[in-house]
Amino acid sequence: MYKQNYKSKLLEDAVDQIASLPGIGRKSALRYALHLLHEPAANVEKFTAAISRMREQVRYCPDCNMISDEGLCPICSDHSRDRGTVCVVESLRDVLSIENTGQYHGLYHVLGGVISPMDGVGPDDLPIKALVDRVGQGEIQEVIMALDTDMEGETTALYIYRQLVPAGIKISTIARGIAFGDDLEYADEFTLGKAIVNRQLFSL
Amino acid sequence: MYKQNYKSKLLEDAVDQIASLPGIGRKSALRYALHLLHEPAANVEKFTAAISRMREQVRYCPDCNMISDEGLCPICSDHSRDRGTVCVVESLRDVLSIENTGQYHGLYHVLGGVISPMDGVGPDDLPIKALVDRVGQGEIQEVIMALDTDMEGETTALYIYRQLVPAGIKISTIARGIAFGDDLEYADEFTLGKAIVNRQLFSL
Repeated sequence: MYKQNYKSKLLEDAVDQIASLPGIGRKSALRYALHLLHEPAANVEKFTAAISRMREQVRYCPDCNMISDEGLCPICSDHSRDRGTVCVVESLRDVLSIENTGQYHGLYHVLGGVISPMDGVGPDDLPIKALVDRVGQGEIQEVIMALDTDMEGETTALYIYRQLVPAGIKISTIARGIAFGDDLEYADEFTLGKAIVNRQLFSL
Repeated sequence: MYKQNYKSKLLEDAVDQIASLPGIGRKSALRYALHLLHEPAANVEKFTAAISRMREQVRYCPDCNMISDEGLCPICSDHSRDRGTVCVVESLRDVLSIENTGQYHGLYHVLGGVISPMDGVGPDDLPIKALVDRVGQGEIQEVIMALDTDMEGETTALYIYRQLVPAGIKISTIARGIAFGDDLEYADEFTLGKAIVNRQLFSL
């Protein structure tokens, strides 16, 4: 790999570390490092402290496995939410995306990953048993699967589905279809097919 | 400003800090924060330590003002370099770009900024006197200006030029012209005009 000589080991180490973030190349990393280099020391201290503190102090919600500063997460401890519905997602990022829509008022279950034999992640590495136990407590009436449609996501959804069937609750999955603003002609045939089969009554 | 609820103050603080880097939006910042959150604690410790160390320990070369881990920078202390030529640049980034070309073997003088009355940066805020003193020591025969062609850059170059004229040394500026791969028809007329006036003998 081509490696720039940064004329300073201290700078080079910082660039190396920043470039280890996903999607940041060495050119951008250098830009960020030089920015931090020219910031007041107190700001850089705030920058590194916030990251260290997050990594060291963050906890996970004992119920839904979402990150939580302490104890139950803000969603599980919010008693105005629909406690009969649980949405299964892969990551916190998915929770934030769904929350952003303002359309969902139930609880979540954050897997923190998906079943992926290639990466050595089996069902027991994910909090699936915890989900089955949650359902077993009797309050949950519906589990909504909101996992990716790639092979790992589908495998994980299927596995969870099988674990939950005995509980006799409603198990649903988020709707697949053509996204708003997307051109029909560019949609893949599988999505378009699903969108036609699962058509909905026209409404304004 | 629209602000996402991150469900965790610790995460939010980290996102705020990462988003303070130039050109990183809150969506990317969240991605980087979650990446760090899921890294082993030792890696995150290495990440923050490298940045803290850089900010706290980096020094500036007493001769050229480039960053330097200690004492003279690697360029000023490299006795194989041409000590009779000094290239004036705005920042370390420019040094790295010029070094990258492999075409320059002299020394540098890093201003760390340009004269900009709008930002309250005057000539005395930059190490211009230090440059004049360097030239006064008698070893330097040529000073090359490699500053941006915006108003601040031109103003700074002109100011430095006037300070150096009494020394009677050669003062040059990097060539302006049409970049390799650029279309003539899209070049601005000023650059194209300069490129014609400063035409060079054809060589292979």
